[in-house]
Amino acid sequence: MSNGSYKWIGTRPNRPDGADKVTGRARFGADFNMPGQLIGKVLRSPHAHARIRSIDTSAAAALPGVKAVVTAQDFPDQPNVVVPTGEMQVNLRDVTRNVMAREKALYEGHAVAAVAATTEAVARQALALIKVDYEVLPHVIDVEAAMKDDAPVLHDHLITEGVKPAPDKASNIAKRMDNVKGDVEAGFRQAEVVIERRYATQPVHQGYIEPHATLASAAEDGQVQIWSTTQGHFQVRGFCSRLLGVEASQIRVTPSEIGGGFGGKTVVYLEPVAMRLSQKTGKPVKMVMSREEVFRASGPAPGGTVAVKIGARRDGRIVAAECTVALQAGAFPGSPLGPACWTSFACYDIDNIKVVGFDVVSNRPKVAAYRAPGAPISAWAVESTLDILAQELGMDPIDLRLKNAAKKGTKTSYGPTFDTIGFVETLEAVKSSAHYRSPVKPGMARGVAAGFWFNVGADSSAAAHVAEDGTVTVISGNPDIGGSRASLALMAAEELGVDYDKVRPVIADTSSIGFNFVTGGSRVTFATGLAVVNSVKDMIRELKVRAAKTWKVDPEAVVWENGHARPAGSNVGEFEPLSLADLAASAGRTGGPINGHAQLNAQGAGPGFGVHVVDLAVDRDTGIVTIDRYTAAQDVGTAIHPSYVEGQLQGGVVQGVGWALNEEYIYNAKGKLDNPGFLDYRMPVASDLPMIETILVEVPNPHHPYGVRGVGEVPIVPPLAAVGNAVARATGVRMTDLPMSPPRLSAALDAATPRMAAE
Amino acid sequence: MSNGSYKWIGTRPNRPDGADKVTGRARFGADFNMPGQLIGKVLRSPHAHARIRSIDTSAAAALPGVKAVVTAQDFPDQPNVVVPTGEMQVNLRDVTRNVMAREKALYEGHAVAAVAATTEAVARQALALIKVDYEVLPHVIDVEAAMKDDAPVLHDHLITEGVKPAPDKASNIAKRMDNVKGDVEAGFRQAEVVIERRYATQPVHQGYIEPHATLASAAEDGQVQIWSTTQGHFQVRGFCSRLLGVEASQIRVTPSEIGGGFGGKTVVYLEPVAMRLSQKTGKPVKMVMSREEVFRASGPAPGGTVAVKIGARRDGRIVAAECTVALQAGAFPGSPLGPACWTSFACYDIDNIKVVGFDVVSNRPKVAAYRAPGAPISAWAVESTLDILAQELGMDPIDLRLKNAAKKGTKTSYGPTFDTIGFVETLEAVKSSAHYRSPVKPGMARGVAAGFWFNVGADSSAAAHVAEDGTVTVISGNPDIGGSRASLALMAAEELGVDYDKVRPVIADTSSIGFNFVTGGSRVTFATGLAVVNSVKDMIRELKVRAAKTWKVDPEAVVWENGHARPAGSNVGEFEPLSLADLAASAGRTGGPINGHAQLNAQGAGPGFGVHVVDLAVDRDTGIVTIDRYTAAQDVGTAIHPSYVEGQLQGGVVQGVGWALNEEYIYNAKGKLDNPGFLDYRMPVASDLPMIETILVEVPNPHHPYGVRGVGEVPIVPPLAAVGNAVARATGVRMTDLPMSPPRLSAALDAATPRMAAE
Repeated sequence: MSNGSYKWIGTRPNRPDGADKVTGRARFGADFNMPGQLIGKVLRSPHAHARIRSIDTSAAAALPGVKAVVTAQDFPDQPNVVVPTGEMQVNLRDVTRNVMAREKALYEGHAVAAVAATTEAVARQALALIKVDYEVLPHVIDVEAAMKDDAPVLHDHLITEGVKPAPDKASNIAKRMDNVKGDVEAGFRQAEVVIERRYATQPVHQGYIEPHATLASAAEDGQVQIWSTTQGHFQVRGFCSRLLGVEASQIRVTPSEIGGGFGGKTVVYLEPVAMRLSQKTGKPVKMVMSREEVFRASGPAPGGTVAVKIGARRDGRIVAAECTVALQAGAFPGSPLGPACWTSFACYDIDNIKVVGFDVVSNRPKVAAYRAPGAPISAWAVESTLDILAQELGMDPIDLRLKNAAKKGTKTSYGPTFDTIGFVETLEAVKSSAHYRSPVKPGMARGVAAGFWFNVGADSSAAAHVAEDGTVTVISGNPDIGGSRASLALMAAEELGVDYDKVRPVIADTSSIGFNFVTGGSRVTFATGLAVVNSVKDMIRELKVRAAKTWKVDPEAVVWENGHARPAGSNVGEFEPLSLADLAASAGRTGGPINGHAQLNAQGAGPGFGVHVVDLAVDRDTGIVTIDRYTAAQDVGTAIHPSYVEGQLQGGVVQGVGWALNEEYIYNAKGKLDNPGFLDYRMPVASDLPMIETILVEVPNPHHPYGVRGVGEVPIVPPLAAVGNAVARATGVRMTDLPMSPPRLSAALDAATPRMAAE
Repeated sequence: MSNGSYKWIGTRPNRPDGADKVTGRARFGADFNMPGQLIGKVLRSPHAHARIRSIDTSAAAALPGVKAVVTAQDFPDQPNVVVPTGEMQVNLRDVTRNVMAREKALYEGHAVAAVAATTEAVARQALALIKVDYEVLPHVIDVEAAMKDDAPVLHDHLITEGVKPAPDKASNIAKRMDNVKGDVEAGFRQAEVVIERRYATQPVHQGYIEPHATLASAAEDGQVQIWSTTQGHFQVRGFCSRLLGVEASQIRVTPSEIGGGFGGKTVVYLEPVAMRLSQKTGKPVKMVMSREEVFRASGPAPGGTVAVKIGARRDGRIVAAECTVALQAGAFPGSPLGPACWTSFACYDIDNIKVVGFDVVSNRPKVAAYRAPGAPISAWAVESTLDILAQELGMDPIDLRLKNAAKKGTKTSYGPTFDTIGFVETLEAVKSSAHYRSPVKPGMARGVAAGFWFNVGADSSAAAHVAEDGTVTVISGNPDIGGSRASLALMAAEELGVDYDKVRPVIADTSSIGFNFVTGGSRVTFATGLAVVNSVKDMIRELKVRAAKTWKVDPEAVVWENGHARPAGSNVGEFEPLSLADLAASAGRTGGPINGHAQLNAQGAGPGFGVHVVDLAVDRDTGIVTIDRYTAAQDVGTAIHPSYVEGQLQGGVVQGVGWALNEEYIYNAKGKLDNPGFLDYRMPVASDLPMIETILVEVPNPHHPYGVRGVGEVPIVPPLAAVGNAVARATGVRMTDLPMSPPRLSAALDAATPRMAAE
């Protein structure tokens, strides 16, 4: 569906970072080293909940080779308010306590101290010499248990936000959120069918292959350099600046290549610790998490419970929808409650909506963002319920969704009214797809589900520079987590009218380019793309000025076409066109270097909608689900580099399937994680899945010059319910709690079979 | 003399790179390493002049551990034309032959092949296995010998430029330059006194402590990263791009800190070789020159001969001046002939001037720039001759210069007419100085000389970014060779109205900032300073827009004062002023990141003038000259950071004294350099000299917002003649040939004594 008028957009050239990545030349987080560096290691709480009475670091500090030991006392305390930090709104009191436990250890794996030593072996030995006097407290792991009146309370000061009048005592409920459109009571009175169910999901880890890793070097005059695997080096700068009271301009953060992040690398764990250890020792300090540490102390996405009630007329028109979402925040407040609530019914044009949400703390690692944070949890509930409704009404599940689909002009429950969106087009693309029109194979069943993500804009800075031979460098400040270098270079080449390989995209460190918000929210190709396009436009403006100077004409009498300045108006044909190389060669004489710049807070991110179809079989004996065919269709705006858009869809599906079928944290009675590794925490591998088919539905975003919408988050939203709906249709058993792992699914089937036989 | 209205300009804070440099944290050229790197070494010609019949690299290539061998065949040949390369005008045919000898080796030490091997030991072993079949040719070292008709000719194609009709055969004279003002014949007819002498200087090395070093890493897809100790990473990019046919945007050059350059690190020696070796091996290749290689194959400044004739009236008014300059270019054309000619009489307002120059090749390393390239050589001749004239006329040497001093409105012999300059003020500052007014101590003599340098502007790019806490980063692209980070930060702080330590200056790599011409010509504080000031102005413009948006007023109703936006006009007092931190905190809501940018070709570099006074004693038995007191006065425009301006003056003086007294290349009969090391090549050390006194004469440059003039080159121009004039006055013997080293001076004294006794 690509616009035929584009030369580069919609093509699939090699990515600029491709060769380095396949040859092993690319440098990831743990690949940075400095002469004289120390190795930092973190001592972590063995208890899920414990008061820290005291920490004796003297024996560790005295060990030869140990250069510094830090505890929470080495980090200034922070006020209990939400403040902008690297443009993220965070409570630094909580952040500093998550980085290093202060009064209490709040989850197994919570950092309580750290050492820097000459070798990793010495560092490990030192950790064993640190004596922490813990008072072990009762703990609570599950979200519903944590919400109970008699639950152990994690934070004595935590008074539930969003409730009036404010409760008079601390609880684990950090926040209540209400989100209402129309009159849901009145709506349900019009309903001819009402479906009501309660669902639960487990927390899942982002599962990036590359563990957190950093190298920090603090100099004697206070300047700090940090290398880090991160989705946002400006956020690393912001957090380290705030947490350690060092001015942002004194800290230079360089991002490494990233071995996956998926939202989990938008926060800091090691960076402030390594920086503090470096400040104390005057040496560079390198820290790398083990896989076990990644599982125990970073991420995950929250688990949650969602109660859904949907009322419809017999013709399929939904008249009222209600849900109550409770999300596990982990040890500190701040689950993605807003997005979970706001996305819940965003796919549908429903007059009466009521959503209530709760943010709940418990003795688990603090959650982090994970692709479309919160949305898969509410979609699992809503899209499963819609499937029940479709079955109840005897409607095709796509027709049911088409009947209720949000479109341009639909007012959402959370505020905005949609501009041009492509949900209807996406549903229709699936309906007419080879997959959906094919008969379901014997022994298989087919599931359908939809999903939504806002996509975001926010702050980006970019620059474009012409080298003296006319080749171009495009600078931005977002780590490339999914092919954004290629997308940015394609847009720059298209705008400039030169070949893709004449444009070199570069990701600059925090000191070399203006502020860029985190790589996340599916914002980079949209917002940073807009900054890149604008910086190229700025450069073209200047190129026209230089051509005008060369020809001694007015700049308005110059046009830019196909990479050349050409005389226009009364001067048409008067002068030979000037190429970028021509203008670059004379730049010194016409006014100096030719650069373009742009910085913006991007408005108008186009929302994205996905519709997934899966055919699968269930082995009734083992509970093993085998996926036979999977198609993900999505309203992708314009697919700048279709291969990487397809890759985003495929990756999101695979992660969603893992969430649906296998992934979960297994805690023992003491609140300790029993499966902190890839052997026991089962993520899908290539042999588990067929090739994921994709349908790119191009409905351009009217707020971007090339119609870009974010594409990276939507595809993780539908798979949970798509798989669940197929499993329900395959087995007759509707699973409400994830994962649908072999033991759980076979237990559910066993439990259901006699009853079904009896019916 | 600092303008009292400045808060930061004229102060002396610590330099931003100071702590790193005194603690050893700063990384110089040889401090970069990459995993898996190879070591590159160069095989150099043992002959001063030899045809290369063939090179057999097979045995070297077969040595275990050797990964690649390159010769000139690995570098594409280049056309014999002068082309802009990183904005320098160079003949790439010559450059590629200097990087790697092709048909002939043209000087002892000329690179003929290079290897990359796993260790330095293997690389050295491999060099010994390379068999070069040389046909040794007659050689010529001295410039006057090289100009003779029967001299061995280095380049068969070299037809003297600038002579009409063109000669019909190749010679070693590459170029003749004529530079005429008025009618010199008529001028001499008016003269009452005519002094005519012939002078000679020896080539001297820039003598940077840090040898050339580079690390190049070429990836499989053609992208190249280079780390290098250089005065211009954009020039390294430009040369490597041209010499190896790789687009500039594919090459990313990061400059290290630099352990001295003085002009000698504006060209490439190792970088293209390391890059080619890396392309062939796919591995990073590190190359570091030994001191011996530095002497045999890099730099130096040319030696030369200058014949001077000056005619004056009895009252001291100079009526005609003429000189003929012949400079050693080294093995390839391109001595700093233009500057040597143009500066020769630039200090003086003389109606009739004629300058003729010759650029001459001989079997020596190709010369490179060295502080005020060419100027010390002609100043040695002209300022010595003026001293003879002053003696002849019985005039004070400063009065003679005052009588003829160039001032605003003086038309130079080479074209421009001076705007505001400070030569008269500098002469007067010396005349009234404590040093000049003090009596000359017994046994001592006093010498005076002046010097001139144009200072240059050219291309610079800069950017300024506000971090989210309101601290500022200022980006530019010139290696800091003399404290420019401090100067740039001071100007940015002054312009912005914030404290110096709130502004962090950063030198970005070639991919992260727009083009910047080389650090040289005394251009950085002027031209890049102008770009920095303009980028801060651009940022202030945007800050006012943001304040206006916050206050909902017109941007014209906002002023920027003392680091704050304040309401103006009818809104005065209406709103609380907004600080940088306030505006930064709300940047996302008011339009995104706040950055400023500027790029320019800086016009109006203010010329600089220096006047030096030296008191010294000569030991008649040994010829040893002992400098007792030395004062350097200079028209410095505005001393942005006076300590670093003083440092430039002091450093220039010391290098000039070395040139005057000791430094020379000693070639044996075979054309081999006999003193390629600091033990035998005698540069001044701290114990050789008193503290150099400085007088900063601040006559602001009207073409810079803070009055900046370049300051780094002028101070090496006067010392040669200042010392020579003092020696002449101390001994009665006028030395015309440098260096005035103990053996040469004592020989001259011995030769003169009987004659003087006989007179």
